[in-house]
Amino acid sequence: MKLWLNGNLVSDDQARIRVDDRGFLLGDGVFETIAVRDFQPLRLDRHLARLAQGLRVCGITPAFSRDDLEAALRRTAGENAIEHGTLRLTVSRGPAPRGLHPPATSSPSVLITAFAQSLAPPKPVRAVIAASTRRNEYSPLSRIKSLNYLEGILALMEAGQRGAEEALLLNTAGFLAEASAANLFCVIDGITVTPPIEDGALPGVMRAAVIEAIGAVEQSITPDQLESASEVFLTNSGGVRPVVAIDGRQIGAARPGPVLNSLGGLILGREKI
Amino acid sequence: MKLWLNGNLVSDDQARIRVDDRGFLLGDGVFETIAVRDFQPLRLDRHLARLAQGLRVCGITPAFSRDDLEAALRRTAGENAIEHGTLRLTVSRGPAPRGLHPPATSSPSVLITAFAQSLAPPKPVRAVIAASTRRNEYSPLSRIKSLNYLEGILALMEAGQRGAEEALLLNTAGFLAEASAANLFCVIDGITVTPPIEDGALPGVMRAAVIEAIGAVEQSITPDQLESASEVFLTNSGGVRPVVAIDGRQIGAARPGPVLNSLGGLILGREKI
Repeated sequence: MKLWLNGNLVSDDQARIRVDDRGFLLGDGVFETIAVRDFQPLRLDRHLARLAQGLRVCGITPAFSRDDLEAALRRTAGENAIEHGTLRLTVSRGPAPRGLHPPATSSPSVLITAFAQSLAPPKPVRAVIAASTRRNEYSPLSRIKSLNYLEGILALMEAGQRGAEEALLLNTAGFLAEASAANLFCVIDGITVTPPIEDGALPGVMRAAVIEAIGAVEQSITPDQLESASEVFLTNSGGVRPVVAIDGRQIGAARPGPVLNSLGGLILGREKI
Repeated sequence: MKLWLNGNLVSDDQARIRVDDRGFLLGDGVFETIAVRDFQPLRLDRHLARLAQGLRVCGITPAFSRDDLEAALRRTAGENAIEHGTLRLTVSRGPAPRGLHPPATSSPSVLITAFAQSLAPPKPVRAVIAASTRRNEYSPLSRIKSLNYLEGILALMEAGQRGAEEALLLNTAGFLAEASAANLFCVIDGITVTPPIEDGALPGVMRAAVIEAIGAVEQSITPDQLESASEVFLTNSGGVRPVVAIDGRQIGAARPGPVLNSLGGLILGREKI
């Protein structure tokens, strides 16, 4: 595979970053994962707008413009002949002298990697509500896609230990926020609801697409309400996964429900048709 | 300078890590910063015990034993002839295929870098109570020194924008937790107190040394209580810094107070004498 690193397409087995990159040392950066379907990166405007917002919050200014990044994303997908798959765009603050303080001038690192996949309906997952950690809705990091992903990793490891494939995270107030790396939707009393951004939900690109497609309502969700849901599903740029059990209790009929099925192409990460 | 990377001492301008290292992509790892004084790395037992605890929480198993790491730390300090300075030991989960799930088998990356510094009394700092973010006391990450440091970076940037050099973080319940990368102590009604671990304070190695040295009390601290403190200071492995103002209000006599001065060698990160 070829990847794009700081302006050059290089072979992935030769690509390296410096050990003083603040992305590696401090998680100082942001990223996007972008679906590729039928050779086209999808929802680039929204992904690049969210990246720009994350970079603003962090005060990181890469040397590449939005249009440079779009061209680089398309080129990386094209060089690797990705029909269906994922692009990951990572921007860190780059190498710097020691210390927590960002340097006065920095050279952000920009990395684009591509992954091919065969397209198939996402597998239903069993989820747990993570007991080991909670999402911090007070932090601006809950609203940007930063490199600080260890919380999600620990929650996912807990899910595995408890015989499940996914973890749902509560926020510090006890409301549902999201899954380890996906947004949460559920159907309660016939209404499709999803946690609001203020509750610690990442403003997911697919989350926005699903809200627009079916008019879902942003509303705080308690664990009790979740238990009563007739359908639960998770969204990320790759598509929509049904949740068939939470903490060992079956959800609805334990198969994709009518709301999920109404999402059409979005289920596979495509446009809704 | 020479650094130690996965078992070899190499020149720092040649050292690189792979772009698929989970430390870089997901902040998936932990680190320690260790003071070197008079050519000796200090408090190695405590630093390596805390590292081991962080690795356990993350389920990361490096190929190097505790004694390997101690030898590597001493060798890196020695090769660079560090009289006074800092060692940083970083352990990430290492390179892995795409995805949040840790791979079944991993090859953790281990990096040790060394920095020389001249020894001088730490400069007094002005601090603000960060408004932009809070520390998540519900997360196991608040109790280990993980690579997820963007929160502290953002708080420190806010401090700079508000004309201060340090940021103090509240936890989600509104109690003081710590500073951007240091533990917090204050003297209230003649008693030296520091936030308990449960309030989101990192179990700092110097924090433990100061508690032992002067019998400080672990106790929740409100912003109001902090305002009434006669002394405030911050500790990390490098030493002890006096806080002379918080949110623009002067603390005590705006200079190192009697409790700080009683800490002797600890002020410079040495042993207490």
